[in-house]
Amino acid sequence: MSTEFDRGIAVTARPSAPATYDTELGAGWQIGAGVNGGLLLATLGNALGSTFAADGGHVDPVSISAYYLSASRPGPAVVSTEVLRARRSMSTGSASLLQTDDDGGSVERIRALATYGDLAGLPDDVRTTATPPDLPPPDRCVSAADAPPSFMAQAGLLERLDLRLDPAYVGWAVGKPSGTGRIQGWLRMADPREPDPLLLLLAVDALPPVTFDLGLLGWTPTLELTVHLRARPAPGWLRVVASTRNLAGSFLEEDAEVWDSDDRLVAQSRQLARAPR
Amino acid sequence: MSTEFDRGIAVTARPSAPATYDTELGAGWQIGAGVNGGLLLATLGNALGSTFAADGGHVDPVSISAYYLSASRPGPAVVSTEVLRARRSMSTGSASLLQTDDDGGSVERIRALATYGDLAGLPDDVRTTATPPDLPPPDRCVSAADAPPSFMAQAGLLERLDLRLDPAYVGWAVGKPSGTGRIQGWLRMADPREPDPLLLLLAVDALPPVTFDLGLLGWTPTLELTVHLRARPAPGWLRVVASTRNLAGSFLEEDAEVWDSDDRLVAQSRQLARAPR
Repeated sequence: MSTEFDRGIAVTARPSAPATYDTELGAGWQIGAGVNGGLLLATLGNALGSTFAADGGHVDPVSISAYYLSASRPGPAVVSTEVLRARRSMSTGSASLLQTDDDGGSVERIRALATYGDLAGLPDDVRTTATPPDLPPPDRCVSAADAPPSFMAQAGLLERLDLRLDPAYVGWAVGKPSGTGRIQGWLRMADPREPDPLLLLLAVDALPPVTFDLGLLGWTPTLELTVHLRARPAPGWLRVVASTRNLAGSFLEEDAEVWDSDDRLVAQSRQLARAPR
Repeated sequence: MSTEFDRGIAVTARPSAPATYDTELGAGWQIGAGVNGGLLLATLGNALGSTFAADGGHVDPVSISAYYLSASRPGPAVVSTEVLRARRSMSTGSASLLQTDDDGGSVERIRALATYGDLAGLPDDVRTTATPPDLPPPDRCVSAADAPPSFMAQAGLLERLDLRLDPAYVGWAVGKPSGTGRIQGWLRMADPREPDPLLLLLAVDALPPVTFDLGLLGWTPTLELTVHLRARPAPGWLRVVASTRNLAGSFLEEDAEVWDSDDRLVAQSRQLARAPR
């Protein structure tokens, strides 16, 4: 009973080369000019998880860092993984996503490093000063159903998600950005599927770029994205808060927090992106 | 006229293998059980900078992410680099630091990914909502000269730095941590040297762990550290703010900001570390 998300990140190990995986980047996960960076990260995460599972355990990503080298396109791709260090409690590996370019050559799209462990086996201590976002209920937020069809045409990703944005930070959609540099909302999959660590890798990069809230409506390509996974999420809605504090020299950082239905901060991410010109 | 810092991060390319560098990890940069992670990151950054410079440019790290695989020890080490993608405005590469273990085998200490560019060539736009920390003047802060000799014996790193900590967050030194999860202060090198991007890689990891301010006085090994460099720093004192918002399941994130004497936010970092038991 696979879901859209599971099919989107599916990888198949080559029998002759178990650290090499074939995958198909679906056109339905595009946003703007490329395939969504979070979906790509979850695909790499899935391949690394398979590698570590074959190695005897460590199924959850704990930290993953991706450098985006060129824009991925819908179609076939190959993920190759390498175990750098396997330890009792955690293992670290490298992963690379490659595609064939127009000339028939192999081009690397993404290189990632990641540490895996067992998030369910962590101690119970929690001393968090961070607080979950204060959001209106989902039915009082703005959904993709409210977006103009011209916008949705470039955003297949949004059809895969049930995303409800806080109206306080969607003024950009009608030419009145708040200027805060924040976007936040509720997130679950349109094709129902409970969250897990791989879904969190999508969640941190699923909202519109925070630059929209600064009145910069354009493409913000990610250079680097690191996600720290802090707990396995409880079932139900996720809440995602994305914000930036420093747009300078044509770059910005975008921080995202993901909270689960138990009010647990389950993922923290930061990316460095290029601001729209 | 090299300084302590320049000697600490010096790398020598092997004539026969220009992407392989020899370096010596100095005992003077130890903190607790290992060599300081920021000094190691600056050493990797130096090797990558040499690789990209030989390749025709891109001398400044813009983003660097390091996964710490095992604790580095003072003594010889080898850094090997690989260019993953070279483009007009930026290049991305990989670097690995290796040492010889007790059995004579090669053991990888750190694997890093990084993107380099030209920070001086960025546009002038700055739309920053972040604000510099409010610190007492350096001569009203707490310096390492005030620390007990037993503490300094384990902290050769601190002799390399002129670090002045805000008294509001040093109560842990006398058993009265503020409980906030913050440490901040002024930083420059004891052997005078103006800051540059490589020095910022040290600066983000040079303060005592923020867990001290939560009353957890112990070793906090870094799993992953990413630094985004946002501008070349002006000469003079740096101000560094480190904080955590989520200590849970025995892990914590530690965010650092580095501000220069022109009130410019020149570096932002986040690391995932293991909390003291």
